[in-house]
Amino acid sequence: MAQPASKKQRTHPTYELLYHPGIPGRGEHVRLLLEGAGVPYVDTARDQKDGYSTVQQICMNGAAESTDGNPPTFAPPGLRVSGAGKDGKSLVISQTPNILAYLGEKTGMDGEGEQEKYWVAQVAQTALDLNNEVHDTHHPVAVMKYYEEQKEESLKKAADVRENRLPKFFGFFTRMLEWNEGNGGKGKYLIGSKLTYADTTVWQVLDGLYFAFPKEMEVRKKEFSALLDDFYNSVKSEKGIKEYLASDKRFEYSMGIFRNYPELDRQ
Amino acid sequence: MAQPASKKQRTHPTYELLYHPGIPGRGEHVRLLLEGAGVPYVDTARDQKDGYSTVQQICMNGAAESTDGNPPTFAPPGLRVSGAGKDGKSLVISQTPNILAYLGEKTGMDGEGEQEKYWVAQVAQTALDLNNEVHDTHHPVAVMKYYEEQKEESLKKAADVRENRLPKFFGFFTRMLEWNEGNGGKGKYLIGSKLTYADTTVWQVLDGLYFAFPKEMEVRKKEFSALLDDFYNSVKSEKGIKEYLASDKRFEYSMGIFRNYPELDRQ
Repeated sequence: MAQPASKKQRTHPTYELLYHPGIPGRGEHVRLLLEGAGVPYVDTARDQKDGYSTVQQICMNGAAESTDGNPPTFAPPGLRVSGAGKDGKSLVISQTPNILAYLGEKTGMDGEGEQEKYWVAQVAQTALDLNNEVHDTHHPVAVMKYYEEQKEESLKKAADVRENRLPKFFGFFTRMLEWNEGNGGKGKYLIGSKLTYADTTVWQVLDGLYFAFPKEMEVRKKEFSALLDDFYNSVKSEKGIKEYLASDKRFEYSMGIFRNYPELDRQ
Repeated sequence: MAQPASKKQRTHPTYELLYHPGIPGRGEHVRLLLEGAGVPYVDTARDQKDGYSTVQQICMNGAAESTDGNPPTFAPPGLRVSGAGKDGKSLVISQTPNILAYLGEKTGMDGEGEQEKYWVAQVAQTALDLNNEVHDTHHPVAVMKYYEEQKEESLKKAADVRENRLPKFFGFFTRMLEWNEGNGGKGKYLIGSKLTYADTTVWQVLDGLYFAFPKEMEVRKKEFSALLDDFYNSVKSEKGIKEYLASDKRFEYSMGIFRNYPELDRQ
């Protein structure tokens, strides 16, 4: 494994990401944590023949059990961990913040000590809130309908997110970088002196925003350069992340959370 | 303390909820966890003279530090814990799912064992997702504008949430109750055989929905009676919860997340 020696380094069970195939989506936050940690995993729908059937059977089955005695999953992503469930069976957990907390603890991607663990979680959860708001720019009034059926509302929602919400979130993440300057973060990390899943989760949302709103981001980059230029590029070049982004394991954005509708971008 | 003896029972530091005054809001999930655990806490804006100034100074200050060396807070709720920070100072954490995870672990409200801890978190996080979707029924396109300025869009969003999202979420929580029948849950608990913060968090969202959409809920109650009748009333009568709900510490719904606009309800 590529990660530096740590008290949390250990032999890992098989971590299996259960997610939709072909899109980064919310699964990407899980992938980036594991890639940044240098811990191997199986991305079932990507790596296994008929893998998406397995994802559907476990995470989208409509029954009162997912599998192996685990409770049902509301929606992907799910995480299956061999041998970690009751009676030595597999454990299945869901909800992105929850999977990140679990894997953060197992891989050391949640910082050092109890305080950092909760600070990492809160910053990642804030990035996931932004992730949801960006999703709503193309689905503001009806989750299951097409964008084209809610385009008028999308124009309003996207303008609000670009004009009011992005600067609020970018301002917060910038303040995190300032706060962490004194802790050895050097503008590279949001919490502490090494990569955590707060960094990878914030990074993924920024990267998606660069795809969805390129014109808006070009302007914001001047205003929030420490975040959108220095931090963004620093995470991109982290060991594990760099190799992953250059590989064919990384999915391209398309019709998932981050979509490039030019009419929703800054005009 | 009123809670049953548990290996997690201990002397607690001072837990201080930092939240807006006068509304249940997201702070209510924190209050219900602590009331259900029988653990004392300070609700700063409610209990202290000029308490809201303290909340604003710590959680809404726009600086690169909240207080005592802790990182900034994106928005309330925050939790301050005496003596739990670095160098014996106070710890400040934020984000509702994160505060619930922290207090769940400290009070035993996160179930028994590692598996239950993550299952409790994922169910609570699913309820908080629903909480956000309900908020968006009156603020679908512009977070900072008035409802009256986005009423047309609200009518569409509320219809979508009532018709498509509520049955999906209620179906999931019902499947949790079915799954947990065999684990000693008896229809009273979502995970395991005692009250957890999954129960209190789901309950609070259901209770808010009864206020916001009384007509819709009256119909849904027949369809999802195990959840909306049996489970809902059972949590309401839990030790700690019952006394709290009858007290003047419980805020009434008004203009927060849950609002009663009759035009958004089932017609």
